[in-house]
Formats: sequence, C-alpha cells, structure tokens
Amino acid sequence: MCDDPLVIDTASTVHDLLKERGETVATAESLTGGRLAALLTEAPGASATYLGGAVTYATEAKVEVLGVDQAIVDEHGVVSAECARAMARGVRALMGATYAVSTTGVAGPEEQEGKEAGTVYVGLAGPGGDAAIALDLVGDRQKIQDRTCAEALSALAGMVREEETDLG
Amino acid sequence: MCDDPLVIDTASTVHDLLKERGETVATAESLTGGRLAALLTEAPGASATYLGGAVTYATEAKVEVLGVDQAIVDEHGVVSAECARAMARGVRALMGATYAVSTTGVAGPEEQEGKEAGTVYVGLAGPGGDAAIALDLVGDRQKIQDRTCAEALSALAGMVREEETDLG
Repeated sequence: MCDDPLVIDTASTVHDLLKERGETVATAESLTGGRLAALLTEAPGASATYLGGAVTYATEAKVEVLGVDQAIVDEHGVVSAECARAMARGVRALMGATYAVSTTGVAGPEEQEGKEAGTVYVGLAGPGGDAAIALDLVGDRQKIQDRTCAEALSALAGMVREEETDLG
Repeated sequence: MCDDPLVIDTASTVHDLLKERGETVATAESLTGGRLAALLTEAPGASATYLGGAVTYATEAKVEVLGVDQAIVDEHGVVSAECARAMARGVRALMGATYAVSTTGVAGPEEQEGKEAGTVYVGLAGPGGDAAIALDLVGDRQKIQDRTCAEALSALAGMVREEETDLG
C-alpha cells in the first residue's frame, strides 16, 4: 500500500475537516481493490468519519451492489468517467455518507475494454453533485494503484474543502 | 499494508486453487479496513477469482449492507464470532461468491465494546457452511491489522483446500 507521508497527511486532513463538521465519507473501489479504504482507516478514530466502502472488482458487483446502471456499463464501459460517477453516487447512497469517492480503471499489465494500463477515472459525489476526474498514469501495477489512491484522496480533500461548490 | 512474502504467497495459493475450480471469493472487513481486499487484488489476473467485498466500518453498514441481524449486534456485539460469521455469510450472498472471509475486532489503541485491542474474529462461509476463528493478538494498530489479514488468508486457504469438510 501507498506509504507516502504526503498521502497519509491528505487522509488525515480529510478526517479532520469531516470531523469538525460531523460529516462522513464512503469509498467504492475497482482497480485500487481496498487500498483507498485502507488509507482512510490508517488513523485511530477513523470510525468517526469513515463509514465504509465497497470493493467492486467484478462488473456484476458494480451493478448489483452499487446500483451502477447496466446501460452505463454497456455504453461507456466500466473504465469510464460515467461509471466512476455512478459508483460514487451509488456508494454514497448505500452507506448514507456525506461524501463518496470512487476509483475505476486499468491497473495492468493487460489492457481492459481496449484501454491501456494507466487509464483511470476517479469519481466524486457530495451534497453539491458529482464529478469525475480522468487520469493517465504511468508505471507498473502497484504504482498505478498507489497513484490512483493519492489522486483520489487529493480530489476528495478538494471537494470537502469547497463544500459549497456545485460539482455537477 | 502487510508485505510479508508468506502472506502474499498464501493469497496466490488461494487464487490458484480457486481458478482451477472456477470458484470465487468475496471479503467483508471491519478492523482491516480494506487491507484484506488489497492483498487479494495484489496479483495481476485477480479478477478471475476475486469478485469484491465490503468494508463495513460502521455498525449500520454491517446491518444494512451485509444484512447482519440487528439481534446479533444487540446480543453479541460487532466484536464477536457471531458477527464475523454473519458478515461472511452476508457478503457471500451479496457478491454471489463460492467462499467468503470476514474480519471484525479491535485494532486499537482504544478498546471497543469493553473488549481489548487485539480481540479479533475471522469469519468464513462456503458451500459447506460457516465458521469463526477467535484470535487474541498483540501489538500496535498496524500489527493487529496485518496479523488479522494473515490469519484470515490462512483460514481461507484452509477452507478452500478442504472444500468437502462441513464447517458448520
């Protein structure tokens, strides 16, 4: 797992901001496979702000557990901004969290849906709406997973800070 | 995350055994917060056998996402063999997996439900029934989380190997 001190700091910042406001967060992960949840549960007292998450590795789990519309999968694939947003919206509703962050993409080494390793989308959902960030990452499987977690936490911190911004 | 080569080997063994048989696994995690899922998605090609999992940090998530009976929580608490078994059964049904493994317990440093840090239960569910293992672990928060993952993987490997055994 990512043990970059800057990433750990970002996770702490998110916790502190949420705790102050009595707000919560949930995660939905595909290519990061639990690493993002692990980062958010690193600190003692994480349970005050982190409700939980889903690791939806299989496409069926994205549809059945998170309620991602099958039409999104059929039209855009699971490696898409649309799927990332739907995963974030889905887990936010499932866990009843204030915010949610999701990851979907190709960790590699093989490509998926004709998309190269490093093609990654981070989804965000909050009271102001939802959003997706497209990433084009370079490196081996572990580096892509770690970098995705770092970007997802950073995006989450940004959304929590700018709570009033319309993300739609 | 745990990077003990023996633990990574156990995860590979589980994958190989499942792949041979066309079987799958799912995870439900409380105190390990995604670390067990991360171990099972370490290897390329993990998607052939690992369907996904739930990180149910909050008690409500255990009840609402995994379908753990509220009566189990009320009578035994979430740090209990009963809850571990119910989490494993719940995620097995949710993901439609052949096997499921769960973790619940006290990572510390504070105690929970009057139970000391290191009080941990691993749950197992499979075609032969379900089971729980009680652990009494020593160490800091990270060591307890890592050790729980190692024990959970080892228990899962045992269950997969002895598929025919009645676990009830």
